[in-house]
Parts: sequence; structure tokens; C-alpha cells
Amino acid sequence: MISFRLLHQSKKSRARAGIISTPHGDIETPTFVPVATQGAIKALVEDAAVRAGTQLIIANTFHLLFKPGVDILSAAGGLHQFMHWQRPLMTDSGGFQVFSLGFGMDHSLGKIDTRVEGDERRTLIDVSTQPRQIRITEEGVHFRSPMDGSEVLMTPESSIAAQQVIGADIMYAFDECTPPRTTRAYIEESLARTHRWEERSLAARTTAQAMFGIVQGSRYRDLRERSAQFVNDRAFAGFGIGGDLGESKAQSAEILSWVIPALDPTRPRHLLGIGHPEDIELMMRGGVDTFDCVSPTQLARRGIAFTPEGRIDLRNESARHAMKPIDARCACDTCVKYSRAYLAHLLRAGEINAYSHITLHNLTFMHRAVRDWREKILAGEI
Amino acid sequence: MISFRLLHQSKKSRARAGIISTPHGDIETPTFVPVATQGAIKALVEDAAVRAGTQLIIANTFHLLFKPGVDILSAAGGLHQFMHWQRPLMTDSGGFQVFSLGFGMDHSLGKIDTRVEGDERRTLIDVSTQPRQIRITEEGVHFRSPMDGSEVLMTPESSIAAQQVIGADIMYAFDECTPPRTTRAYIEESLARTHRWEERSLAARTTAQAMFGIVQGSRYRDLRERSAQFVNDRAFAGFGIGGDLGESKAQSAEILSWVIPALDPTRPRHLLGIGHPEDIELMMRGGVDTFDCVSPTQLARRGIAFTPEGRIDLRNESARHAMKPIDARCACDTCVKYSRAYLAHLLRAGEINAYSHITLHNLTFMHRAVRDWREKILAGEI
Repeated sequence: MISFRLLHQSKKSRARAGIISTPHGDIETPTFVPVATQGAIKALVEDAAVRAGTQLIIANTFHLLFKPGVDILSAAGGLHQFMHWQRPLMTDSGGFQVFSLGFGMDHSLGKIDTRVEGDERRTLIDVSTQPRQIRITEEGVHFRSPMDGSEVLMTPESSIAAQQVIGADIMYAFDECTPPRTTRAYIEESLARTHRWEERSLAARTTAQAMFGIVQGSRYRDLRERSAQFVNDRAFAGFGIGGDLGESKAQSAEILSWVIPALDPTRPRHLLGIGHPEDIELMMRGGVDTFDCVSPTQLARRGIAFTPEGRIDLRNESARHAMKPIDARCACDTCVKYSRAYLAHLLRAGEINAYSHITLHNLTFMHRAVRDWREKILAGEI
Repeated sequence: MISFRLLHQSKKSRARAGIISTPHGDIETPTFVPVATQGAIKALVEDAAVRAGTQLIIANTFHLLFKPGVDILSAAGGLHQFMHWQRPLMTDSGGFQVFSLGFGMDHSLGKIDTRVEGDERRTLIDVSTQPRQIRITEEGVHFRSPMDGSEVLMTPESSIAAQQVIGADIMYAFDECTPPRTTRAYIEESLARTHRWEERSLAARTTAQAMFGIVQGSRYRDLRERSAQFVNDRAFAGFGIGGDLGESKAQSAEILSWVIPALDPTRPRHLLGIGHPEDIELMMRGGVDTFDCVSPTQLARRGIAFTPEGRIDLRNESARHAMKPIDARCACDTCVKYSRAYLAHLLRAGEINAYSHITLHNLTFMHRAVRDWREKILAGEI
């Protein structure tokens, strides 16, 4: 199990700082959580992630279920052992893949992209038909195995069974992450089912691992409040906030302002799948303790680096001749050692070291930004 | 400049141990030299290479000439600065690319593959025509730029000029690396031209960087001896042994036995482009001080790992369930932390961390194998 110690609750905002204690060590919150979908932080060896400031990572149950499979994870003694990660670990339940394999794939929607503006994205998704790739029933989610095309059924019970083999310090209840721009009627139906799945998830657990419940409800205040109340009243060790958080920072802040006050302050709160640098402030002020996002690692592999002045694209011609580091004030190995020109060269030469170097910087940047907020929170400045 | 100190010359074989001192530190010889063709050891950050035991790396003038180009290398203050490599560095002259762009590309021959058996490889290359991709004249090598298709002329003078901008501790004279299975007449003509190019290379140098001359001559004793005598009589700081070393270990050992005794023992000897684990013994007994090869890094990216019992293929089904490390006696991070099953998972999941982990092991393996030989040489056992 885990415990949460609140070090400071701001009186000016919902911001707070604390420590989550887990069987694999403490997590100083707030903190950013890098994504290790398949049991590896992409392009970064574990030591480098720790040097960047990583305290907690999140792996994905859905992916690990197929590769390497629970038999191998079981033989390895769990994911901590398998990937040699000796610090805290959480696993997503697979609910997000229900979204991305289903409506997301049908409509080319990725959660990371939901804020893209444009009229073509404003059309409501047709929920009168089931998504093509999956079939959702009360029992669970039916889909074709990405490995061999065979029919697979993922249920709250099978998600928890898999998460128990993986052995993360923190598991998530199995939910449906509803897509943006679907109808209220569909969201309501889905939310009721998600709550039943969350109860089944709790009932299915046979280990001492912590389980977080997930708040869904899309952009509807009453549904978000209903969902927050629901998970708050259950024996979850903490809370995940999932699904559609709107298209603007203001809307995200508003949704957080509905959910966070309804949650027991003695338990930690994780925001699922959101975390660009420009989102940090609203999450901090909104009372989020931990949050995960692929953005620092995924953008790094596209040659995009974070700086205090915003993102830079190291594939741009201008980077080829820039003998300065990504960020002269950054103390990461990448900024201490390499110019933008060298990183631009590696990208153009197809050298995968480029991905490692930029990933290290982007993670360092995210962790330091959140740590700076933490210090301000502890100092009573926010 | 560099200096070489002989610590021990075996009386039982040509094996020897020494120290090459360079402006960027000492190199304990014999040692294996990892390849950093484009200014990066593929899939491995520099710190990890040093932990693996790397003392000296070799980069490629031909590749760097086009990417990032001499203007950027000049602005960076040379390759040491650009890639943040603070230890000894050597640069190939581009002669090997003359081979691989020319006859090698025409006939799908790679130097690394010259020992492959099979009748179809035994046909003599038709040297009555020039290779299609390049044109060799007394002046130098004419070819199309891989960047924009424009006509490029690479000469001894332009190679040395580029190598001076790159600023390696050790440069190589510009040569033609003749392909295996061509005629004696062609080899003889090429060798005479290579010797003229080597003299022009020496004359072109305007820096204090060390320059190694290259011994060519393919599999012909009189040509090898003539070439060794030629470079030995010139003001080279050391020697490279290049070109075709035959199809068997016995043949390679024989060719080394022609060349090495003709070379001044007070200067270091580098064997160019050869270095599978199974080649180490003949090089050690043959008196080679340093040698480079892409095999440990290139094979790693194909999932092939070195062990004392031979190579293992981590893409094989059997690796998926193997909870033991690549080599239980190896102290590298990869073997200390990860099972074969985890590495097999990363390979199958397309996680590039697999390449980093296996590269680290293979380099550690090579360096340790050569270091073990060095200790035996120093102990008078070989």
C-alpha cells in the first residue's frame, strides 16, 4: 500500500505539496510522471531518467498484456524486476486504449491532440454505432488482439489480474476513457458503466497494491461531480482524473475546479495523460499531485525541445548552425555537453543518440519546472 | 603529436603492450577502437562508451564532410568539441569509402563480409571498367555528392584539409582500399597511386596532428612488403594496415606476418576495419596495437550479443523466456540489470533502448577481451 503526507496546502489556490510513500520509495509531489508504455522510457536508459529527476513512471497494462505477455512478466517476478526499475511505478488499466482503439482510431483522435483547433474536429462523433475496432459490453471490452487477430475480452477482473502480475505500486481501476465531442447521453451511459467497472476492479484485487479510482464525466459538471463523489466514497488509495479536459486551459482549470474539491484531500490525485509544459501552472494551481504525458519523450523523438521561451524544432535549418545549447541555464548532460548544431546533425544523420539526448533534456525540463512550482508552493507563494 | 611507449614485447609471438600518448590522453594498447562514423557511437552515449572501456574512437572524414560539413565542424572548433568527446580520436581518410562507393557498391561487397564463403563471391571483379559510382584519377576520386548529386573531387589534399578541421589526434593518409578478388595488375597500379597519395597527404599537413600511413597490397606478399617498406620510410607517426586480409584467420595471420616485421616497432600499428571477437587472438599474436570494427555496435542493433560461448541472437524465440543475462560473468550495466527476456522484449516492441543496452554489452565484451589479452602479454604468457 501507499500513504500520502500533505506538507503544505496553499490558502491562495488548491495547490499543495506532499509526499507519497510507496514500497519502492517516496515521491515528492507535485511531480511529473514519464511514460514507460512498454516497460521502457523511450530512448532513455533508467539511470538517465533518474538523473533527470524522475521519481515515478507509468507503464501500460494493455501493451504489456500482449508484449511481453503476463507469462513472461510473471516469470520475471513483475515489471520492476523485468525492467530493473527500483523506484515507484504505476500502471494504467487499459481504459485509455479502449478509447484509442475504438472511437479514437475510427476518428483519428488522439488524446494528446484534443486541443487542436479546426472546424473539422468540432463534429460530434457518431455514437449511434459502436466503434469498429472494439465492442463494449457490460462485461468488458471485446477487441482483436494486435498480436494475432484473435478475439480478446478485457474486463475489470482481467485488467486487475494483469496489473497484479505487473506488480506496480499503484494500479488503476478499469474504466472507459470517453472521447471528446461525443454526446451527453453516451457519456452518461459510459460513466455509469465505468463506475460499475471500478467497483468490480476493487472487488477483484487480491494483493496489497494500491488502487486509484478514475474520475470520468467529460466536460459535464454534474457528471464530473457525480464521478468524483463516486470514487471518493470507495476504498481507493488515490484518484485519477481521466478523459476529456476541454480545449482550453481555462476549460481544463474549470473541470479541475469541479473535481478536486469533491475528493478527499488525504489521498493523492493524478491527472491522466496531460502534461505539456504550458499545462503545468493550471495543474499546480488546480491541486494536481502527479500527472503523466508522452509529450516530453514523444516530442523529443520528433526533434522538439522545451525551453523557457517555448518549444524549438531542432530539425529547422536554423538549428544546424547554432553553437549554443538548447537551454544555457539547464544543467542536464545534453545542455552541458552539446550544441543545438550537434543535435541537429544527429537528427539529420539518423543517429538515435539524438533521441536520447533530447529526451533527457525534455524530461529534465519538465521535472525542474514542476520542482520549481513545488518550492513556490512550500514557500507559500502560490 | 603522439608518442608510443612499448611496455612489453613478447619473445613468443609478435604480441606487445604499450601506451600511446595523445593530446587527449593516453591509450593503453592493445585496445579495440569503436566506430563513430558520423560523430557518434551508434546507440550509445559517450559516458557509457567510456564505462565500457573505450579509450579511442574513429570517425569518418567522408561522412563528416557531407554531414554536418566542414563549415559547421570548423565553427564548432573541431569534432572533439562538437561531439563532446574528451578522449583520443582518430579519423579515417575516406579511402575506405572510395572502395565501398565504387567496386564495393557495384558488386555488393562490404568489407565486413569478405570472409563469407560461397562460389558466387569467388568471381574476380571486372576491373577492365571503372566502377560506376566513382572515377579514380591520379588527382583523386571523383564521385557524386550523396547530399545533392553534384560532382565532388576528393584528393589527398582535400582529405587532409578536412581531417585538419575535424582535428583528430590521429589522421590517416588518403589511400585507395582495393576490393577483394580483383586482379594483381589492378592492385599493383592502385598501390603505386596510393603511395603517391600518401606522400601528398604528408606534404599537405599543416598542423601538429599525428598522421598514420596505410599499408595496402591486398593478399600479395611482395606488394604488402613493398607497401610496408614505403610507409615505414616516411615520416608517419604510426601505421594503418588496410584492405583485404584474406578469407581465413590463417590467411590474415600470414598477411600480418609479412607486414608487421617490416614496420618500425617504435610506432603504433592500427588494423583498419577488422575486429570480430574471433579475430582478436590473431591480431594480438600478430602484433596489432589498435583495431576498429563496426561489428560490436552494428550487430547489437540486429539483436546479436557476444558471449564467451559465441554469439547469441536475442531475436530468437528462445531468448523471450530466458531470465538470465547475456553473460552472467559480465559486469556491464546490461548484464547486471537485464535478462535476455527483457532485451528480447525491447527488440520485439521496437524500443531503441534495446540497441543501447546490447551495444553497451558488446563493447564491454570486446574491450574486456582485449584487456585480458593485454594482461597476458604483460605477464609474458603470450
